[in-house]
Amino acid sequence: MNDQILLTPGPLTTRIETRQAMLRDWGSRDPAFIALTAELRARLLAVAQGGPTHACVPLQGSGTFVVEAAVATLVRPGDKLLVLANGAYGERIAAIARRMGRPVEALRWPENRPVEARRVAEALRADPGLTHVALVHCETTTGLLNPLAEVAEAVAGAGRHLLLDAMSSFGAIGIDLRSVPVTAVMASSNKCLEGVPGIGFALVEQAALARCAGVSPSVSLDLHDQWRGFEKDGQWRFTPPVQVAAALAEALRRLEAEGGPPARLARYAENCRTLLSGMRRLGFEPYLEEAWQAPIIVTFRMPDRRPPLRFASFYDALAARGFLIYPGKLTQAETFRIGCIGALDRHDFDRLLVAVAEAARAA
Amino acid sequence: MNDQILLTPGPLTTRIETRQAMLRDWGSRDPAFIALTAELRARLLAVAQGGPTHACVPLQGSGTFVVEAAVATLVRPGDKLLVLANGAYGERIAAIARRMGRPVEALRWPENRPVEARRVAEALRADPGLTHVALVHCETTTGLLNPLAEVAEAVAGAGRHLLLDAMSSFGAIGIDLRSVPVTAVMASSNKCLEGVPGIGFALVEQAALARCAGVSPSVSLDLHDQWRGFEKDGQWRFTPPVQVAAALAEALRRLEAEGGPPARLARYAENCRTLLSGMRRLGFEPYLEEAWQAPIIVTFRMPDRRPPLRFASFYDALAARGFLIYPGKLTQAETFRIGCIGALDRHDFDRLLVAVAEAARAA
Ligand SMILES: Cc1ncc(COP(=O)(O)O)c(C=O)c1O
Ligand SMILES: Cc1ncc(COP(=O)(O)O)c(C=O)c1O
Repeated sequence: MNDQILLTPGPLTTRIETRQAMLRDWGSRDPAFIALTAELRARLLAVAQGGPTHACVPLQGSGTFVVEAAVATLVRPGDKLLVLANGAYGERIAAIARRMGRPVEALRWPENRPVEARRVAEALRADPGLTHVALVHCETTTGLLNPLAEVAEAVAGAGRHLLLDAMSSFGAIGIDLRSVPVTAVMASSNKCLEGVPGIGFALVEQAALARCAGVSPSVSLDLHDQWRGFEKDGQWRFTPPVQVAAALAEALRRLEAEGGPPARLARYAENCRTLLSGMRRLGFEPYLEEAWQAPIIVTFRMPDRRPPLRFASFYDALAARGFLIYPGKLTQAETFRIGCIGALDRHDFDRLLVAVAEAARAA
Repeated sequence: MNDQILLTPGPLTTRIETRQAMLRDWGSRDPAFIALTAELRARLLAVAQGGPTHACVPLQGSGTFVVEAAVATLVRPGDKLLVLANGAYGERIAAIARRMGRPVEALRWPENRPVEARRVAEALRADPGLTHVALVHCETTTGLLNPLAEVAEAVAGAGRHLLLDAMSSFGAIGIDLRSVPVTAVMASSNKCLEGVPGIGFALVEQAALARCAGVSPSVSLDLHDQWRGFEKDGQWRFTPPVQVAAALAEALRRLEAEGGPPARLARYAENCRTLLSGMRRLGFEPYLEEAWQAPIIVTFRMPDRRPPLRFASFYDALAARGFLIYPGKLTQAETFRIGCIGALDRHDFDRLLVAVAEAARAA
């Protein structure tokens, strides 16, 4: 049914078996769907080894909704959040906290530089009022991978809580909650898990969650109440997107069958290497230094040529050849992005490179 | 792929064509999906004749999310909301406003009695501080239809704004925004529209919406910003559930093909008549007086018999026969509910009645 390959950060190309899992209707309060929800929650927790310490709280909506729910539920009015920002998704967390009226500060880095644990530790020493720190694992704005282990150590060492936006890394780049101290990890169904969009989820330390009854100013975006709902009778508080849940469960079974996050990372890394070397050959330079590049999505600079290559016509020429790429999200440089994730392998990228060569000539 | 018929208020039984519309991947920023979103928004607006006055703002998440977003966006901190409550969904709106810290009062009726426009008018006269009124069109708690036209007239006559939770009526019970003054109508994809769950939407008066920049305390649940996003480039601000949207567009095409809300209402009304007369014959009495019963979902009292019929075993006996019914939501009386909505006709209800007779004997 697909006539196009999606080279995006999600919604992305999924397996047909994952989409076929949506062909059935489910009663949302029926034992069969309660079992599916339990399977989903257990599998998501297992992806990050969150077993004994954390609880998986799925939430209806997009990834932004679960990021907001985590801030709303865990950061109290008297707390203070430090957002580590080197891209649009970090800035979004700060904007969410500001709108909600929660005290928030941002520590910033250029979009092509990773967050530095040393500066985080300094900031936490300088302001004892800071209670929570928010980090974006893979900054999808550029494709940069931030140093999770170092930042988590700095935050835990200072006795603060870390909220991790792992939207575009979860399922591929390993997060081991047994050894890396994170209070809440937020992600969604439609990126490296290769499900379809419609569900976000948070893996939250149960001890922290249990203290947060009534903290969220939002009934819908309350991870504590959502969690209590699941614990009470295995059901979602409000109507769940049952088909999206069924697709996610199927996608998680496929992740396990593939060999879990290490195998998925290996496939994405091969996609990324194929993409980077092929694009360089065609005269497209990546925006990031290789050291910070996650094998998730690559930002390329528009080549310097006369007449200039315009994104819109390049996009259309690639779309006509069956490939959908993604616009850039930077303000300082003209760029576009190509995702390495989804149900794709290096052969898809070999074919993409042929199309890029043609499209660059045609556009 | 379905082996069971869902007699629920949603997620419910959908047409296979609607589910098949989910077999495709979509790039959420691709022109094809932008066109699908435009079609969706136009069709939803047309269902209630909202054309020139209102804007359709779809939102990721369940119905509760869009109800909360409407309150958050339209009721300012200095405003005051009057909730008309005769069931759990009215109470939920009051709880949402309280959590958000918005001034709110509730005017209550027993669960088996409709809201009375006369008392609403009195309350609005008595308290000039009240700026908004919230009404639940069909109270799914019981299946009761509240008198929309009379209440809307009382609210508009007093110069206040009406927020209408039309979750379980929209698409079947006519709402004509040209003649019935409503500031915002909220509903979702998975009830009388016969789509799958994952999208809510509000039809909001554009003049009211335009005044509400920055009012919502939530980035995710901000109908103003969501609307501006659609107006800017036709795209969703945050990742949309693309397959759920495709299913909803297909479901809306089917609604038109069926003859629109009047034809759908006629089918549901026939389902409801078949159900009511058949269940009475089998000794099951409806909870509501016939005058207040909407042809959406019917609450039945558990029959008075020895040994008593227990919901759990009755449910299982019906499920074994391929029919999923719904638990009651009342505190005062032991009840269960049977939905009349979804891709079902009177023949499905004839077969259901055979199964009910058997299940009541077996359970
Ligand atoms: C790192 C990161 N955070 C948050 C989001 C927001 O997710 P959504 O678009 O599902 O709301 C994204 C989406 O691309 C992301 O990459
Ligand atoms: C009248 C009414 N309002 C609100 C809701 C809440 O919708 P959801 O469960 O999708 O959050 C429902 C759901 O049944 C409803 O019937």
